[in-house]
Amino acid sequence: MSAPQIEQLIQLLSRLPGLGPRSARRAVLHLIDKRESHLMPLIQTLQDVAANVKICPVCGNMDTETPCNICTDAKRDVSQICVVEDVADLWALERASLFKGHYHVLGGVLSALDGVGPDELKIESLMARIQSGNVQEVILALPATVDGQTTAHYLAERMAKYPVKVTTLSRGVPLGGELDYLDDGTIQMAFKARRDV
Amino acid sequence: MSAPQIEQLIQLLSRLPGLGPRSARRAVLHLIDKRESHLMPLIQTLQDVAANVKICPVCGNMDTETPCNICTDAKRDVSQICVVEDVADLWALERASLFKGHYHVLGGVLSALDGVGPDELKIESLMARIQSGNVQEVILALPATVDGQTTAHYLAERMAKYPVKVTTLSRGVPLGGELDYLDDGTIQMAFKARRDV
Repeated sequence: MSAPQIEQLIQLLSRLPGLGPRSARRAVLHLIDKRESHLMPLIQTLQDVAANVKICPVCGNMDTETPCNICTDAKRDVSQICVVEDVADLWALERASLFKGHYHVLGGVLSALDGVGPDELKIESLMARIQSGNVQEVILALPATVDGQTTAHYLAERMAKYPVKVTTLSRGVPLGGELDYLDDGTIQMAFKARRDV
Repeated sequence: MSAPQIEQLIQLLSRLPGLGPRSARRAVLHLIDKRESHLMPLIQTLQDVAANVKICPVCGNMDTETPCNICTDAKRDVSQICVVEDVADLWALERASLFKGHYHVLGGVLSALDGVGPDELKIESLMARIQSGNVQEVILALPATVDGQTTAHYLAERMAKYPVKVTTLSRGVPLGGELDYLDDGTIQMAFKARRDV
């Protein structure tokens, strides 16, 4: 139909999360239409990212420096490590800009269905960081799914022998949440974990 | 927060139609994660497209050849020109693979609101193609919107002085359309244009 290069580009773009074949086609038309203002800067930036962005060997964050800017920031608290599933979650916490400790990206959560065991995740390097002795608190900021909570329990068990405090995010009614629209599980959790006003 | 290159890439991707900041962020994380299998081929293909894909000077299609493969295909009927709004519409018609004539991409439709007049569209080149004498039928495959129909009327008027047949796509109930869910305008059109079984 159209040139093979265009077809290949549509196919590559449609493999991105959030894009289907139809939106990939629209994106390609837009890019060819805006060659100078959009296509060329996009190629440039992709090359820049491919050449410079690395995975931090300490925490698993993505940055142009190794170790990453968070790991080398002297103003951040080395006694706290926040464990997250992936880099997107790390960025979400950084956007909230409330946590001033260090991170550890697991690279996933344990999942019997998807065949993800402890060896597939960055668990040994987390244990090594805890063993180093500087860490006082490990905050498990894992998803509130079955797999996320299984992982949290597994990690808490593994860390039991070290003198670290293990905490997790609180569960409850989200901001703006109406009880009528919430699932029973959330309401139960929020009710059980009720606190003084 | 994250490296400036990553931020810039997120910003560029979020300007693509169909992608917002959140899906652009997910796409970037996916690309960095799949550097060899996805990011590098994407850069390669984008460069390939940027270097080789051109706009056909005859019909406005996008192809690696100028004139494009449709314009130079000897098997296609030179006596029919199908006028479309943009390349996406041309591709949609080609996917349906029923039309074996030539195309003419207008590059938009007349719009008083958006300030698009006849000079912004490829109308003069269409008239020049009709004047050349080979064309017997012009099919106006323009969107069934107010602007699309205004454009169709304008073009039909401009072509009145040439000995060409001007046709337009039929309007009516789409395939799988239930009357109950259709707008009144479509039902009116379908009823007025009713035909013998």
